[in-house]
Amino acid sequence: MSKSKVEEFKKTRDKQNEILAKYANRNQKKFYGLDASTYQSGALDKKTKELLGFTASLVLRCDDCILYHLIECKEAGVTTEELSEATSIGMLVGGSITIPHIRRAMTVWDEDLQD
Amino acid sequence: MSKSKVEEFKKTRDKQNEILAKYANRNQKKFYGLDASTYQSGALDKKTKELLGFTASLVLRCDDCILYHLIECKEAGVTTEELSEATSIGMLVGGSITIPHIRRAMTVWDEDLQD
Amino acid sequence: MSKSKVEEFKKTRDKQNEILAKYANRNQKKFYGLDASTYQSGALDKKTKELLGFTASLVLRCDDCILYHLIECKEAGVTTEELSEATSIGMLVGGSITIPHIRRAMTVWDEDLQD
Amino acid sequence: MSKSKVEEFKKTRDKQNEILAKYANRNQKKFYGLDASTYQSGALDKKTKELLGFTASLVLRCDDCILYHLIECKEAGVTTEELSEATSIGMLVGGSITIPHIRRAMTVWDEDLQD
Amino acid sequence: MSKSKVEEFKKTRDKQNEILAKYANRNQKKFYGLDASTYQSGALDKKTKELLGFTASLVLRCDDCILYHLIECKEAGVTTEELSEATSIGMLVGGSITIPHIRRAMTVWDEDLQD
Amino acid sequence: MSKSKVEEFKKTRDKQNEILAKYANRNQKKFYGLDASTYQSGALDKKTKELLGFTASLVLRCDDCILYHLIECKEAGVTTEELSEATSIGMLVGGSITIPHIRRAMTVWDEDLQD
Repeated sequence: MSKSKVEEFKKTRDKQNEILAKYANRNQKKFYGLDASTYQSGALDKKTKELLGFTASLVLRCDDCILYHLIECKEAGVTTEELSEATSIGMLVGGSITIPHIRRAMTVWDEDLQD
Repeated sequence: MSKSKVEEFKKTRDKQNEILAKYANRNQKKFYGLDASTYQSGALDKKTKELLGFTASLVLRCDDCILYHLIECKEAGVTTEELSEATSIGMLVGGSITIPHIRRAMTVWDEDLQD
Repeated sequence: MSKSKVEEFKKTRDKQNEILAKYANRNQKKFYGLDASTYQSGALDKKTKELLGFTASLVLRCDDCILYHLIECKEAGVTTEELSEATSIGMLVGGSITIPHIRRAMTVWDEDLQD
Repeated sequence: MSKSKVEEFKKTRDKQNEILAKYANRNQKKFYGLDASTYQSGALDKKTKELLGFTASLVLRCDDCILYHLIECKEAGVTTEELSEATSIGMLVGGSITIPHIRRAMTVWDEDLQD
Repeated sequence: MSKSKVEEFKKTRDKQNEILAKYANRNQKKFYGLDASTYQSGALDKKTKELLGFTASLVLRCDDCILYHLIECKEAGVTTEELSEATSIGMLVGGSITIPHIRRAMTVWDEDLQD
Repeated sequence: MSKSKVEEFKKTRDKQNEILAKYANRNQKKFYGLDASTYQSGALDKKTKELLGFTASLVLRCDDCILYHLIECKEAGVTTEELSEATSIGMLVGGSITIPHIRRAMTVWDEDLQD
């Protein structure tokens, strides 16, 4: 995945978010607002929250969610070693069924996001 | 996704169903028959049943199943507002992990299936 | 499960909800508010929405959620035949792994909630 | 769990199955029939099929399903070593989240079902 | 749940772990060793790792795993506010289906583990 | 999927495994080692173990894992009839939500792996 792939992910996501917004009813809009506010820095800092989002996405095995939080982790200053330890927990808790997702995530990390 | 994408989905599905039929044992054939009969109109009408199939597929996060029931919903006369409310329930029950699937579903609805 | 078991469920739930309220931060309170508003009658009527909540809970296999929506279904006027058809869809989509949950749900329906 | 606990499980299950039968519509009855026929000896023997049912139930984390197939495994002649290896695969694939279920399963195996 | 309930959980767990150890093959023993080493302090501190374990357990909806990590969180010095924010992320990502588990977790936190 | 598609899967997997190895910490390396040793022939033969891996992957609905074990099943001598019966169990336990994965698996089996 070239750097443009992360860009491509963001671009597709932005485009689809416009469609979501077009059809979103009142309850969905509230949900999207909650989605944004839940990850804001508070008693836990942004970095910890993004690691939580990343690990939750990993054990639930959603590639798009994993990639989203991977990018957010990078922006929040998560290091390769920290990401690796969060990944270990996800792999242990969620089992080998998570490995294909880890393969794809680390490929993006390796090509676009690492230190 | 152009109108030909829904067609493409149906075409691929039909082709793969032929392969399934080729290898299906007696129990699998019964399962496929049951799959068809379960969604037939009864005490609940077709529309309600397809909304149930759509929402179950959404919380279990299977794109192909979501798309299949989305098309069936359209054919059963589900409106954009009704679909949106079923989607809200799926999003609430299943959480933000369902959002990428909703993005893809609403993109197809927007481009091919809406009123 | 005697009629007092449904009452017991509601009582425990109310008591635990008080504890939830005590610790709920701003985002959690919004989530609980959203949980309530999502099932309100709109383009889809209350009955259909509760059947959606029941079926989503069934395929995700959460006994408490199933029981909650079972009670709500009853109050919304869902008949045994309608419940049975929604259950069929959940069983088909979610597989035999849902059957123990259906056993427990139908036992409550039989003893406390049926027509 | 005393030997009477396995008996208690069977008894509760039989009683609840009577309730299921009372409310089962035509599609549900077909599903229950399919549930029975799928595990019958064929190209794969009964023992292998019950190990498949056990492992599938383990990774999907349903205690009742695990216990049911554990009993069936015993009756089909599965040894402790064979069960242990199937459990290893379930634990590896499904992750540490399966361990509480394995604890409960092996407690029953130890007290009621082992060689 | 009285303080003795946490003790009861630990006691049952210890007893069942003895049974696990009795039947564990070589691969299972390695898995249990890995389970222990993965949560040790490293690039991420113990507190963050336990919050990751708690949140992963929450979205996968395993009461025993949630309770285990809740106790570990407390011992690692997680505050009520921090726990509450991790819970928010789990609730958002995993959806309302996680709420019954949060009810039970916060009841234990309230009665036995809070500051 | 042409024969080169299985090759393509293996090639991509090998390439991504190199990236995994590059970032794997000590715990992850142990997990990968465990992943390999768990499927080795023991009290259960290789064929049975691969059928267990296939069925577990099917009910957890991971295409890459399904394809991996499908290839391993073939190499271990699993026949079309045996695969079909394992598939029936996965379909029954996991429900119709597994069918799209079965469609994709049987397409590869039909084109590249069958007898």
